[in-house]
Amino acid sequence: MKYFHSVGNVRDLSSLVAKAREYDREPLLHPQKGKGLRLGLVFFNPSLRTRLSTEIAAQNLGLTTIVYSVQKDGWSLEFEDGTVMNGSTTEHVKEAASVLGRYFDILGVRTFPGLTDQEVDQQEKIWNAFCTYSKIPVISLESATLHPLQSLADLVTIDKDLERKTGKGLFSSGSTRPKVVLHWAPHVKPLPHCVANSFTEWALASNAIDLTIAAPPGYALAPHFTDGASLTHDSSEALEGAEYVYVKNWSSYESYGQTPPVQDDWMLTESKLRHSPDAKIMHCLPVRRNLVLPDELLDGPRSMVIDQAHHRVGAAQAVLAEIIGAL
Amino acid sequence: MKYFHSVGNVRDLSSLVAKAREYDREPLLHPQKGKGLRLGLVFFNPSLRTRLSTEIAAQNLGLTTIVYSVQKDGWSLEFEDGTVMNGSTTEHVKEAASVLGRYFDILGVRTFPGLTDQEVDQQEKIWNAFCTYSKIPVISLESATLHPLQSLADLVTIDKDLERKTGKGLFSSGSTRPKVVLHWAPHVKPLPHCVANSFTEWALASNAIDLTIAAPPGYALAPHFTDGASLTHDSSEALEGAEYVYVKNWSSYESYGQTPPVQDDWMLTESKLRHSPDAKIMHCLPVRRNLVLPDELLDGPRSMVIDQAHHRVGAAQAVLAEIIGAL
Amino acid sequence: MKYFHSVGNVRDLSSLVAKAREYDREPLLHPQKGKGLRLGLVFFNPSLRTRLSTEIAAQNLGLTTIVYSVQKDGWSLEFEDGTVMNGSTTEHVKEAASVLGRYFDILGVRTFPGLTDQEVDQQEKIWNAFCTYSKIPVISLESATLHPLQSLADLVTIDKDLERKTGKGLFSSGSTRPKVVLHWAPHVKPLPHCVANSFTEWALASNAIDLTIAAPPGYALAPHFTDGASLTHDSSEALEGAEYVYVKNWSSYESYGQTPPVQDDWMLTESKLRHSPDAKIMHCLPVRRNLVLPDELLDGPRSMVIDQAHHRVGAAQAVLAEIIGAL
Repeated sequence: MKYFHSVGNVRDLSSLVAKAREYDREPLLHPQKGKGLRLGLVFFNPSLRTRLSTEIAAQNLGLTTIVYSVQKDGWSLEFEDGTVMNGSTTEHVKEAASVLGRYFDILGVRTFPGLTDQEVDQQEKIWNAFCTYSKIPVISLESATLHPLQSLADLVTIDKDLERKTGKGLFSSGSTRPKVVLHWAPHVKPLPHCVANSFTEWALASNAIDLTIAAPPGYALAPHFTDGASLTHDSSEALEGAEYVYVKNWSSYESYGQTPPVQDDWMLTESKLRHSPDAKIMHCLPVRRNLVLPDELLDGPRSMVIDQAHHRVGAAQAVLAEIIGAL
Repeated sequence: MKYFHSVGNVRDLSSLVAKAREYDREPLLHPQKGKGLRLGLVFFNPSLRTRLSTEIAAQNLGLTTIVYSVQKDGWSLEFEDGTVMNGSTTEHVKEAASVLGRYFDILGVRTFPGLTDQEVDQQEKIWNAFCTYSKIPVISLESATLHPLQSLADLVTIDKDLERKTGKGLFSSGSTRPKVVLHWAPHVKPLPHCVANSFTEWALASNAIDLTIAAPPGYALAPHFTDGASLTHDSSEALEGAEYVYVKNWSSYESYGQTPPVQDDWMLTESKLRHSPDAKIMHCLPVRRNLVLPDELLDGPRSMVIDQAHHRVGAAQAVLAEIIGAL
Repeated sequence: MKYFHSVGNVRDLSSLVAKAREYDREPLLHPQKGKGLRLGLVFFNPSLRTRLSTEIAAQNLGLTTIVYSVQKDGWSLEFEDGTVMNGSTTEHVKEAASVLGRYFDILGVRTFPGLTDQEVDQQEKIWNAFCTYSKIPVISLESATLHPLQSLADLVTIDKDLERKTGKGLFSSGSTRPKVVLHWAPHVKPLPHCVANSFTEWALASNAIDLTIAAPPGYALAPHFTDGASLTHDSSEALEGAEYVYVKNWSSYESYGQTPPVQDDWMLTESKLRHSPDAKIMHCLPVRRNLVLPDELLDGPRSMVIDQAHHRVGAAQAVLAEIIGAL
C-alpha cells in the first residue's frame, strides 16, 4: 500500500482490521518496525484524535514524527496550476509537497473540503497534489471527501463489540451481518460528508454489514458511495432491529454544502431507541451535546464513542505498518 | 500521588524538595523511569517556562511527551453540564478528557482563570473536569487558582540559597525560619492569584518559612490561603529583616478580578531595600520590567528570578517521578 | 564555532561544505554525536524548510529538539533596554533568553527584519540579544539581515552540480570559478535582503565563484555586502555565460524597505535564457510562481530549487556538528 485514502487502497480489509486489533492489544508489538524512518504529519485543519492517535501509533512503531501545521507554522499554499501568484498565497503545493517528499519517508495530510463547489471537493485537489508531488507514500488524515482512518477504527469497534456479544466478529465464518444504521443528526453548521462517505464505503466493502442510511429529504449522500446500502427518510423504520447506530451530521450533497430545512426532530433519544434495546451508539467526535446527541445517550451504556476514539491508535498503527512493509 | 494541584496532594514536602534538587544536580539520574509511558501536555493558555521545563523534565525521565494546544490545534471546548451546544463550542470536555485519558498515561493541564466570576474560578471546573473524565493522573501546569510547579521550584530556590548562605537548608534540623515577604507589585492588567495563592500555601505548609504578605488595601488574597501568614499594608515594615522578597502582582480578590486604585508606589527599588542588604528578589516570570520590578533589581545581585525558572525542570521532574512511582 | 550567523563565523568554508555533503550522503553517520544535548528552536516567524530541515538534522545527530513558537506558544517579547513595560509586551528578552540558556545546550533563532528602520535592522537586535543573554551557542535560522543556513545549502548545491558537470567541485584544485548571477525578480510585497546578503557574503568568501548581481536601479544591496561582486542593472548582459542564476526578490536598501517602481520586466523566462543553454536556476523558496519565476523554469530541467531545499538538511547537520564539537 502506497496511498491510504479510499477503502479501494486496502488489499485485505479483514486482515487490516485484525492487525489493528492486534496493535490495540499490544501497542509495542513492533517497536523497531519504523526505526530510521520519518513521518511528517501535515495539518491544514484542527484535529485532536487524528493528530494524537497517528502520532502515538507512529511512536509505537519507532517512527520519528514531526507535526507541521501549514497555517500556523508555514506559508499559505496555492493549489491552482498556472496562477500568477500575486495574491495572498505564498508557496505553491508543487514546491511544498516536493520538499516534504525529500524530508520525509511517509506523509500524512489533513484537509477539509471548502463545501462551496462540489466539483472542486470531489477532485480531491489537495490530497492528489500531495501524492503527485511528494512522490512518497501518503496517508489521509481526512480529506475533502473521505476519512479512512476513522472508518477503520469504526469497523474495529463494531468487530470487537460483536465478538464480545456473539462470540463471533464481523469476519468470522458463520457470523451474521449486523444491522448498522448511519443516522443523520442535526447541527448548526454545514459539515463535510467525509465521515459518512468513508463509513459507507468501508461498511459496504466489508461485505459483513447490513447498512441502512437514514437521512431527511435533501440529505442523500453522493450516489457513488451509497450504492448497495438501504436508503430511507424514515428514522424509526431504520432503527428497528438496529445493532449499531452511527450518528453523524452532514450537509446536503445535492444542494452542495447547504443545509436545507428539516421537518422532523432528527436527534436520537433513549425513547426513540426503546424498541432497540441492544442498539449501540457511535459517533466520530467531536460531538455537540444535546444538539447532535443527548447527554442521556452519550453518558449511557449504549455509547461506544470513546472506544471508537481509542481504536484510532491501533487503526493508524496497522495502516502505518502496512505502508512501512511496502516501502 | 495521582493528582498534583494543591500542596495537600504532597505527602512529604521536604523530600519532594530534596528530590527536585537531586534531579537538578543530576538530570539523567533515572533516564528509564518513564520508559514506555506517555505524557500529554494540554495547554489552554500561553506558556514558556512551564511548557519547556515540564517537557524537558519528562525527556530526562524517558517519558514520551506530546504537547497539545487546545485553541491552536483542536476544538473549542464546552465545560458546562447539560448545555445544548449550538453555539461556538465544538466538543465537550467529557469527550475530550475521556479520549485523552485513553491516549496518555499522565496528563498535564494549563488553564487560566476568567477573573470575572469568583465562584466559577474557585470551583476549578477545568482542572476538575480533566481529573474526573480522563481517569488518569493529572499534573497542574497552572490552573484557575494555583500554580504548584512554580511553588515547588520557589522552595527549591530558597532552600538552595539558604544552604549556600547558612550551611543549612529549609528543612535541616536546627535551621531558623527565614523571613520571606510576598510583596504585591503594580501592573497594567488584572492578573490571576495563582502564583501568590500557591506560594502562600506551600510556604505555610513547609513549616520552615516565616511568611509576611504585603499588599495595598483591597488586595488581600483569599483568606483560606493566607491563614497563618502575617498580613500588612505597610511595605517598608514588611521588608525589615526580609531575606527573600517574592514580588508579584495580583488583582483584587474581594472586588474580584478588579484593580482598585493604589495610593503608594509599590514598585520595589534598591533604595527601598537599603535596610535589607541581604534580601534576595524573587519573581515567577514573565515580569514587566520597570513596572513590576526595576532593571536595577532584575540585573543586580539580589535577583534569583533566573534560578527560579531554572529550578522548574527539577521540580517538574520530581513530581513526574512521584506520579510514575504511584502508577 | 559558538555562533553561526555570518560567514565570518566559519573557520573553513570548503570543509564545512564537504561535511554537509557527507551528511547528505549518509545522514546517520554520527547518530550519537548530539546524545544528551538539547536544541531549542525559537521561531518569531513562519518557516517550512528551515524548521523541518534543522529539526531533522538534529534528529540525525541524536540531539533532543524542542520547537518553540514565541508568538503562538508564549509571551510577546520586549527588546528595548530600559523601557517601562506598560504596553503590549509581556516579557523582556533578557529574561526569556536567559531562561532558554538554562534549559537548552544550543539555540536556533528565527526572526525577520521590520523593514521600516534600516539602522534597527542592521543592528540585529534580536539575534544579538539571544547570543548575549542565553550565553550558549546560537544558530541563525534567518535574522534581520542574514540567512546563513540557506547560503551553505546553496553552495552545497552548486558544488555538487558543478562536480556532476565538470568532474570538479567548487574547491577542487584547478577548478574554474563558475559565473553565478544573483538576479533580482519582481514581487508584490517588500521582502527582506537576508537571502541575497547571505548568498553574496558566502559566494565571495568562497573565493570560488565569479559573482554578478543584477538588479534594477534603486535595488542595490548594502555596499558592505556586495564589495567584490560585479554589479549591473542590465539583466541580459549579466545572464551571458551564466552557469547558475540565483533568482530572488528583495526590497530597496537605499529607500529602505520600499519598492520603488521598476521599468523593465525582470521575471526570467526560458526565452531570456536562450543564450545560456546550461544556466541552472536557483531560488531559496517559497517562490510565487509566474510572478518571481514562471512555471516553465520551475518545472523544467534548469531548476535546482528542490535540491537546494533538500541540501538544507545536510547543511544544518554540518553546522550543528561543528557547534557540538566546540562545546
